[in-house]
Amino acid sequence: MDNALSLSADNRTPLSSERIAAMDAYWRACNYLAAGMIYLRDNPLLREPLRREHIKQRLLGHWGASPGLSFAYVHLNRIITERHQEAIFIAGPGHGAPGVLAPVYLEGTYSEIYPNTSEDEDGLTSFFKQFSFPGGIGSHCTPETPGSIHEGGELGYSISHAFGAAFDNPRLLVAVVVGDGEAETGPLATSWHSNKFLNPIRDGAVLPILHLNGYKINNPTLLARIPRDELAALMRGYGWVPHFVEGDDPAAMHQQMAATLDRCLDQIREIQQRARTSGQATRAHWPMIVLRTPKGWTGPREVGGKQVEGSWRSHQVPLSDLDANPDRIRQLEDWLRSYRPDELFDRAGRLIPELKALAPKGLMRMSASPHANGGLLRRALRMPDYRQHAQTVAQPGRVSAMNTKPLGAFLRDVMAKNMDNFRVFGPDENTSNKLDAIYAVSKKLWLADYLPEDADGGELAPDGRVLEMLSEHTLEGWYEGYVLTGRHGFFATYEAFVHVIDSMYNQHAKWLAISEEIPWRAPVSSINLLITSTVWRQDHNGFTHQDPGFLDVVVNKNPEVTRIYLPPDVNCLLFTADHCLRSRNDINVIVADKQMHLQYLDMDQAITHCTKGVGIWDWASNDQGGEPDVVMVGCGDIPTKEALAATALLREYFPDLRIRFINVVDLFRMQPEGEHPHGLSDRDFDSLFTVDKPIIFNFHGYPWLIHRLAYRRTNHKNLHVRGYKEKGHINTPLELAIENEIDRFSLAIDVINRVPRLQVSGAHVKERLKDHKIACRQYAHEHGTDAPDLANWTWPH
Amino acid sequence: MDNALSLSADNRTPLSSERIAAMDAYWRACNYLAAGMIYLRDNPLLREPLRREHIKQRLLGHWGASPGLSFAYVHLNRIITERHQEAIFIAGPGHGAPGVLAPVYLEGTYSEIYPNTSEDEDGLTSFFKQFSFPGGIGSHCTPETPGSIHEGGELGYSISHAFGAAFDNPRLLVAVVVGDGEAETGPLATSWHSNKFLNPIRDGAVLPILHLNGYKINNPTLLARIPRDELAALMRGYGWVPHFVEGDDPAAMHQQMAATLDRCLDQIREIQQRARTSGQATRAHWPMIVLRTPKGWTGPREVGGKQVEGSWRSHQVPLSDLDANPDRIRQLEDWLRSYRPDELFDRAGRLIPELKALAPKGLMRMSASPHANGGLLRRALRMPDYRQHAQTVAQPGRVSAMNTKPLGAFLRDVMAKNMDNFRVFGPDENTSNKLDAIYAVSKKLWLADYLPEDADGGELAPDGRVLEMLSEHTLEGWYEGYVLTGRHGFFATYEAFVHVIDSMYNQHAKWLAISEEIPWRAPVSSINLLITSTVWRQDHNGFTHQDPGFLDVVVNKNPEVTRIYLPPDVNCLLFTADHCLRSRNDINVIVADKQMHLQYLDMDQAITHCTKGVGIWDWASNDQGGEPDVVMVGCGDIPTKEALAATALLREYFPDLRIRFINVVDLFRMQPEGEHPHGLSDRDFDSLFTVDKPIIFNFHGYPWLIHRLAYRRTNHKNLHVRGYKEKGHINTPLELAIENEIDRFSLAIDVINRVPRLQVSGAHVKERLKDHKIACRQYAHEHGTDAPDLANWTWPH
Repeated sequence: MDNALSLSADNRTPLSSERIAAMDAYWRACNYLAAGMIYLRDNPLLREPLRREHIKQRLLGHWGASPGLSFAYVHLNRIITERHQEAIFIAGPGHGAPGVLAPVYLEGTYSEIYPNTSEDEDGLTSFFKQFSFPGGIGSHCTPETPGSIHEGGELGYSISHAFGAAFDNPRLLVAVVVGDGEAETGPLATSWHSNKFLNPIRDGAVLPILHLNGYKINNPTLLARIPRDELAALMRGYGWVPHFVEGDDPAAMHQQMAATLDRCLDQIREIQQRARTSGQATRAHWPMIVLRTPKGWTGPREVGGKQVEGSWRSHQVPLSDLDANPDRIRQLEDWLRSYRPDELFDRAGRLIPELKALAPKGLMRMSASPHANGGLLRRALRMPDYRQHAQTVAQPGRVSAMNTKPLGAFLRDVMAKNMDNFRVFGPDENTSNKLDAIYAVSKKLWLADYLPEDADGGELAPDGRVLEMLSEHTLEGWYEGYVLTGRHGFFATYEAFVHVIDSMYNQHAKWLAISEEIPWRAPVSSINLLITSTVWRQDHNGFTHQDPGFLDVVVNKNPEVTRIYLPPDVNCLLFTADHCLRSRNDINVIVADKQMHLQYLDMDQAITHCTKGVGIWDWASNDQGGEPDVVMVGCGDIPTKEALAATALLREYFPDLRIRFINVVDLFRMQPEGEHPHGLSDRDFDSLFTVDKPIIFNFHGYPWLIHRLAYRRTNHKNLHVRGYKEKGHINTPLELAIENEIDRFSLAIDVINRVPRLQVSGAHVKERLKDHKIACRQYAHEHGTDAPDLANWTWPH
Repeated sequence: MDNALSLSADNRTPLSSERIAAMDAYWRACNYLAAGMIYLRDNPLLREPLRREHIKQRLLGHWGASPGLSFAYVHLNRIITERHQEAIFIAGPGHGAPGVLAPVYLEGTYSEIYPNTSEDEDGLTSFFKQFSFPGGIGSHCTPETPGSIHEGGELGYSISHAFGAAFDNPRLLVAVVVGDGEAETGPLATSWHSNKFLNPIRDGAVLPILHLNGYKINNPTLLARIPRDELAALMRGYGWVPHFVEGDDPAAMHQQMAATLDRCLDQIREIQQRARTSGQATRAHWPMIVLRTPKGWTGPREVGGKQVEGSWRSHQVPLSDLDANPDRIRQLEDWLRSYRPDELFDRAGRLIPELKALAPKGLMRMSASPHANGGLLRRALRMPDYRQHAQTVAQPGRVSAMNTKPLGAFLRDVMAKNMDNFRVFGPDENTSNKLDAIYAVSKKLWLADYLPEDADGGELAPDGRVLEMLSEHTLEGWYEGYVLTGRHGFFATYEAFVHVIDSMYNQHAKWLAISEEIPWRAPVSSINLLITSTVWRQDHNGFTHQDPGFLDVVVNKNPEVTRIYLPPDVNCLLFTADHCLRSRNDINVIVADKQMHLQYLDMDQAITHCTKGVGIWDWASNDQGGEPDVVMVGCGDIPTKEALAATALLREYFPDLRIRFINVVDLFRMQPEGEHPHGLSDRDFDSLFTVDKPIIFNFHGYPWLIHRLAYRRTNHKNLHVRGYKEKGHINTPLELAIENEIDRFSLAIDVINRVPRLQVSGAHVKERLKDHKIACRQYAHEHGTDAPDLANWTWPH
């Protein structure tokens, strides 16, 4: 690609002057609507002089980014129509929704979906009034916005969402406007590298339009204030071919934008044709556009003697304090009339036919694209039988296996059956996480340079369907974009560092919760997050790698979309993964470690157990036919093992002690049924956990989470939870457990302390158990490992 | 800067062949030590043939990045010595600690701090054995590592930490090795832009060394697999002048690295001198180095027929499975002996004097720099009197004020008195957050291009001490680096989006918790996080902007370093801020909204109240001299107002009802004293909250958090918490409160439901209260605002 060419403005003039006038009129209509929705609650077409009572009391919304968004939208419409190009639109500048809602309304989709906002004066009144108004719609491209898969409430994910949408959609163009404010965020800054993961044969194209709007809410933006050459170098360094469209004169800008878009689309087609004809997928240098326009373009130039257009003052509402400055009502009217609404809308309040004709039709409208309502396109996965990977478990707690290893084989089979709509995501760790079986059918996508040694175990391929990049943000963004456009996936990541995407989890959960209330949004596949390399096996990586607190973030979101599973062994994990891959509109969090762990349930038992989500393990209990003295609970792989080992110890020391052993897989079973759809009824809960016996609950995560879920349960006062308490240095696994008191000895001591009749008889046992703990630590510090007999403990028979 | 020059290898040859030999020997000693600490538990100098029992059972640590880190360290030592240049070293590749620990030990600091790891054979044995060994030290540059301010347990923050360290340290050079894995993360990708915030007059220099090591744990890295020109363009686009040092021949690489470092240091000095002589601070194009070396450089070339050096196989332990492959013990010995330890260490096991002489001395050693133990350099802030900004409160709950506005004035005064060691951070929102008073003494730092309109209210200046960039990651990283090197700061951010840095919070809290256990680490200033633009005033921004869940993340970390305050009004906020700015080694989270809120306490009352952290507000209570019927609690500004309004309503309807009104400022007061240093004793708690009366607790955040803190309290069964329940669209403030039932009407209904004697008499009142809720919503949907009489409610007198 010639750099000089890519930097210079395009000299072609694809638009006739009539076409420029028509497109400009369409754009004026957009700008009029954008301003109208910020200001007006009545008199939407200015059929009478503007008065205070036509104007909303509280002025909300963001004008600044809107004209640029509409400008891009209107020009994309030309491309779609002329080239029969399928496209969707992603608006990075979240608050700029007026710039998106306006063209969505003008092309008719809004009225089709929401009949009250019809294409006439009445409908326009409703359309204006509802914007950023109580009971109405938000100032972002919320799920209510037709054509949106990206709300932008939190900034930084527009490009990664765009790439997710483009994957496996070879005919699709995803146009994504990136705000120059958003561009300062970390997630956005690295997401430019997504171009190294786009296969020109099987994927669609992403066309980023970096909107140099110049200002954030109160400051200039960095990218608007570096030399043009530097910005061009940055984009080229990211691997893009930048094209600049800069200016403020609408007519000249229309011509420039049209020429540039033509050029970009030509380049995209050329890249795709070359790859598709040759069958050679290599990394391409895709085009992108830098669109530099004044902030609040076409808005009031000056208000109260201060520059507004082209400054941060037009970020939100450019003309405000109308009550204190009644003359501004006139200024507002002048501004609104500058768009000449009378020329744009007919008597009924409908966009005039000449302009209406400019928009694409039917499903080609970006606002009506089924890709942006992905549930419509979603095909359920073709599912292999997970039971084929069952672990043989002749006796519970006797053999060990890597819990995630068979999951890798299952995912491989899922992949093999769904090679066009399933992807696996992970930050450089799928092998480390023992999911590498998947590479047998699909390798890691790699389009950047290859070296000879890659052939030897690199598992890289230009058509790989496993995506690995050391950015949880980018992976999660891709995954969300992929799922929101109707496909399926699976994301495995390190437990401690899943906190990196706490905020993305929050935002996606909110998107789903709202989407469930919107009848026209078809359900999409769930996000499946495997949390592995968990805290209890980070003994050697140390304190920074120990953090099971993502679950505490998860539980705060809407119960309709949140699910947490802690399968204790291979068969439970397989069943859980199968269940999650079939589910819709949820975020499934599966916690399972990758190391060798004891196996407890054969496949039939696992299915029964996981279907219930919580249950008594009879083989580990000796309270049959009566009330137990104590309830021992394991939740999570390692905590379950330690709880079992404690149970075995106690039964050895106190053969008469009646212990009920419970395992919890589905964490939300702990919550009352009124609070979460998976919650156990109080009756069932009481019958499992008793109403008055001590419960020793050994939990995978921070212990308080269990109290937060179960504080209203009858027997809560007897609930004693052990979990991670931020105690860890460099340890052995058992030493780490001891530090946090989730180990077998501490649990057994807990039981002795809590069961009244053991408090005297158990005193000497407690001393022995304490000695065991000390001995464990001594052994660890001497040998660097746990004593084999303790590490390799199995359930006695 | 001439691009051609900056890209070509430097032809200067600053090193004599003797000097090359000596530096190479020093580097060999580093590499020997790095390998030794991964493998050896005995026979540290190979004085006898290597046997299995000399080798650790469990092989841990990361060899791959270590040689490159040591290489950089050794070359920086030359610069420090020759130029008398103060410097510190930040190792981005966290697991590469062997490459840092080795030179730290060789220059003597390690032995000075930890006498057991003395500079002799015995000490070396301990030094090797303790590495990644239970009871020993981690494989990262943990707080135990002398000279470290950056652990790198989670990747992405090396550059932002480096800049934080360089701010206001004009003589300091911060060398930061950036891993090419880390470089893929979002936070790192945007942190390159930090150069636009470095003032060459008053700040030091940051020299990034991007280590193109080639591989992550299982994959090539992106930046190592793009063309060199593309990488150079990327760095130039970020505003740096890249210098490439590439190769694998040690002698040639030493010469090249030395020449390049000389050149970089010359460029840095030139930039600084120009600015400091002229007094003109403008944005500079600082040098950076791209260091491309084979992964696991100098390690085993091949193991078991597979390439190891220069491939991902040398990421962790290059020679493993020694028990299954006993011949590898010989290979290990050969590898270790390839460094010729006999030439490097004397009979006692001490580095020979000729090599010892190469390291800097005393505090000039990077490992001994007081900047990297910032508490040593920390001067307490000169504190103005916060009481000067007191809000006059003649009667509680009658006047309103913007809570954060006077805080801005207080911060301005703090800034004025501490113009060399205090900074304020915020993502583009300090004005929006009403802290703009601060600009009167220090504006926003801006070194990128200026435009004429900036003069009009832009508040930008090249010597500004307020740092605003739309990246919470970068801001938090700068702030941590600034504080860890002994200075002070304040960070204000939007509540919903503070989740972006959940993970950074976790990591810093872990750093502090460990640091508190290390006697030689002097306490540093606390991180002060003002969480504002809170959920209850995001009614118009909508659902994505509503998330008070950061507190749920905060509470999981070590109680020794976690603090949460929810001051209800101006005076409480001022006192709290003053307290936090004086504190050390904590992370103080202050939740306070920026909008107009009722004021309750005059300054003396606020001091008394906040010192207690929780207390009865007598003026709002009518249970004096007796037991209350109900305890009403407010925690947070808006919840307190609604709880007071409920109290007023109830007293109107039920004059005999005895209500005790409690306000909670210090959230950890809710926890038992054994669990948090701020926890109330059970006796005090019971006496405040009673042991049997209903408690209606109106909380700022997710309601379950209060149960998590207070579940062991005597009266927990009567504790009813209201808070945010993920219910929000576009609302008015009161409507949002109603949706989540934290509003006055819902609270009053709660009381009626919970106080037995109201259950009959209160029935009709409940109906009226429900009608009020419906009317509120109707008013909101009609007018877009709350009814003025409800919005402007004040406490009756």
